[in-house]
Amino acid sequence: MKSILIIADGLGGRPTDQAGKTCLEAARKPNLDGLAAQGAVGLVDPIGPGIRPGSDTAHLSLLGYNPRELYTGRGVFECLGIGLDVQPGDICFRANFATVKESAGALLLVDRRAGRIESGQRELEAALDGMKLKTPGVDVAFRASTEHRGALLLRGSELSPYVGETDPHETGAEIRSAEPMAEGRAARRTADAVNELTRRSYELLKDLPLNVARAKAHKLPANILLVRGAADCPHIPSIPSIYGVRGAVIAGGALYRGVALACGLESIEVEGATGGLDTNLRAKAAAALKALETYDLVFVHIKGTDNAAHDHQAAAKTAFIERIDAEFFGTLLGGIDWNTTHVAFTGDHTTAIDYGDHTADPVPVLFAGPKVRRDDVTTFDERAAARGGLLRFSGQVLPTLMSYADRSPKYGS
Amino acid sequence: MKSILIIADGLGGRPTDQAGKTCLEAARKPNLDGLAAQGAVGLVDPIGPGIRPGSDTAHLSLLGYNPRELYTGRGVFECLGIGLDVQPGDICFRANFATVKESAGALLLVDRRAGRIESGQRELEAALDGMKLKTPGVDVAFRASTEHRGALLLRGSELSPYVGETDPHETGAEIRSAEPMAEGRAARRTADAVNELTRRSYELLKDLPLNVARAKAHKLPANILLVRGAADCPHIPSIPSIYGVRGAVIAGGALYRGVALACGLESIEVEGATGGLDTNLRAKAAAALKALETYDLVFVHIKGTDNAAHDHQAAAKTAFIERIDAEFFGTLLGGIDWNTTHVAFTGDHTTAIDYGDHTADPVPVLFAGPKVRRDDVTTFDERAAARGGLLRFSGQVLPTLMSYADRSPKYGS
Repeated sequence: MKSILIIADGLGGRPTDQAGKTCLEAARKPNLDGLAAQGAVGLVDPIGPGIRPGSDTAHLSLLGYNPRELYTGRGVFECLGIGLDVQPGDICFRANFATVKESAGALLLVDRRAGRIESGQRELEAALDGMKLKTPGVDVAFRASTEHRGALLLRGSELSPYVGETDPHETGAEIRSAEPMAEGRAARRTADAVNELTRRSYELLKDLPLNVARAKAHKLPANILLVRGAADCPHIPSIPSIYGVRGAVIAGGALYRGVALACGLESIEVEGATGGLDTNLRAKAAAALKALETYDLVFVHIKGTDNAAHDHQAAAKTAFIERIDAEFFGTLLGGIDWNTTHVAFTGDHTTAIDYGDHTADPVPVLFAGPKVRRDDVTTFDERAAARGGLLRFSGQVLPTLMSYADRSPKYGS
Repeated sequence: MKSILIIADGLGGRPTDQAGKTCLEAARKPNLDGLAAQGAVGLVDPIGPGIRPGSDTAHLSLLGYNPRELYTGRGVFECLGIGLDVQPGDICFRANFATVKESAGALLLVDRRAGRIESGQRELEAALDGMKLKTPGVDVAFRASTEHRGALLLRGSELSPYVGETDPHETGAEIRSAEPMAEGRAARRTADAVNELTRRSYELLKDLPLNVARAKAHKLPANILLVRGAADCPHIPSIPSIYGVRGAVIAGGALYRGVALACGLESIEVEGATGGLDTNLRAKAAAALKALETYDLVFVHIKGTDNAAHDHQAAAKTAFIERIDAEFFGTLLGGIDWNTTHVAFTGDHTTAIDYGDHTADPVPVLFAGPKVRRDDVTTFDERAAARGGLLRFSGQVLPTLMSYADRSPKYGS
């Protein structure tokens, strides 16, 4: 038995999205409607009713974990997703390049995204990765990702995740000094390391050829690294160890790849998978079909739906859903063996167009495959899903899929 | 965005209520049916499926809290609702005036409700409030509420909520000695204080002019105060701190006002809001509309449905539901701005007519407003709600309402 789980980020919508309809209701999506007709649908609360999910906590919950037990923060998944080797005891941070100006010895924030820097990230990364600190016994690893984003990892004895951020989140404000948020030597030492590396990042970056060139071109220099979301590595029982399956993840966004890696899946790189609206959906579907030849489980994450909704772009979200239907599912369904494969499709939360952020509204979910109790619903959207055979439940989409594949561990005997 | 949550106590019913119908099914309620048609309905288990809720625990759960984590007992909410200033460390009790007779030095229970004493409570309160005890360093505050009911608070160092009640619950039985229910000095000391104040209440009340007059009129004297349900003050994160909203409560019953105050809402007094079947529903709706001008959130509690059901009065419950529809919603709906307001309506539990008490049956719930995914249901009752777009969920009605208003905190990132 093979299993494929597809999560379209921020898939769910509200009637305020597009003239009384959600984007999913407005979209033409014959392949998804066909899957709904062939399988069973329902509504899933990614974490629970009334809980407004983050993307990281929602993914953990949909994958079958209780985020209240094991979520430590986003930094871990960003570090993993970006290719850093995260070990127990390491402290992980989300990081971003920013622009500061010096004024009487203080560093004042000009732009917390360094003008959404579009190129040269490798040069910035090389300058920061492996920097030496005076704080003894602390190693620094840094990776840049897209635009101003990156991830930073501290390794050493006596480090703590209880440390505040350095981003003042306010233009003109002085760069924050990271504060220890717990008693004891470890939090103090970690805060010292963070403050030292912040100041040092400014020294390492400010005169870099890239920034000299950006200044000449009247662009904002990426002259400091700010960090936030300190987290240590949670113990997550792996999907292979729970279900006895080998699994792969295909995701353009580092966070989602990171969550899947933390859960024991292996990452498959797909050329053109960007984590944006410009992603190559046909290539992702083709890669998923190929992966199904050797893996028991493939998890595909598609990000564009969420990007469009965060930007309040209803037409773009609807058009992207239509592309998911035509390009991703159009390709995928051509290669599925329905005798041996179960497909699950859902979103990790609702992202409302007018609000431009996640909401607690539940999300439609579908399962199709030989073991699924088919229902009467022949359309895949929020309101049709409320009439489906799976009714309403919380999280646990992967465990349900694994049970259809007869790979679930028995709880009790 | 504005939000209004209305809870009709004991709203839910069973087919045994009234010739095969629940009272909600039997009632004529065009306004509620119209709201159902305009919004989405579902079934809510106030705490969880199969759990028979108390009013206090149900309200906490519907307001988004886990009562298993923070419920310490009803006394706290009674004290708060009645206007006592409850501080961390205080021990709160439910209290009631009772009638005892002395026999060979023992106090024997004649009536645990002092003949449901209908007037003179202020005189009784004045005699008891601030009484001095020999148990050192313990202050006593007491407030009478309706009929025989009241709330008592002990303040001092080294007090404990682990102390038994003094009410023997059996006519002719001797007044109970409160027992410490935990090891250590605090529980022993609290039990001593309770036993001293119980005996002392008899001395303070027995010859009060009110009781002399009651004896002359062949009425039972209110000659002792019995206490039960000792509870200390839980730490409840406030609704304003969680959602960034200012909220108000309109409730005739002290318990419900107390729960809302404990959750950080401000109480609005409405003349004629009695917490009974005689309450002024038009005045409550008008006050709610007025409060919506200055508050982000208004919570209205209506008690009469539960009173009628506890008294096994199906026709009275049905008639009161019709009054809620005509008088409360008839007034409210005239003043709602549907572009900016979400309305939620539900009950805190089912109160079955034949059983005369709360049952675990889920309760219909409706949400209406611009962000709600409207469903096809056009009737508001238990069986219609089971076909609604919200399906079935547990508690979390306020968090859902706050998410519609785009005020929910994100869990994760």
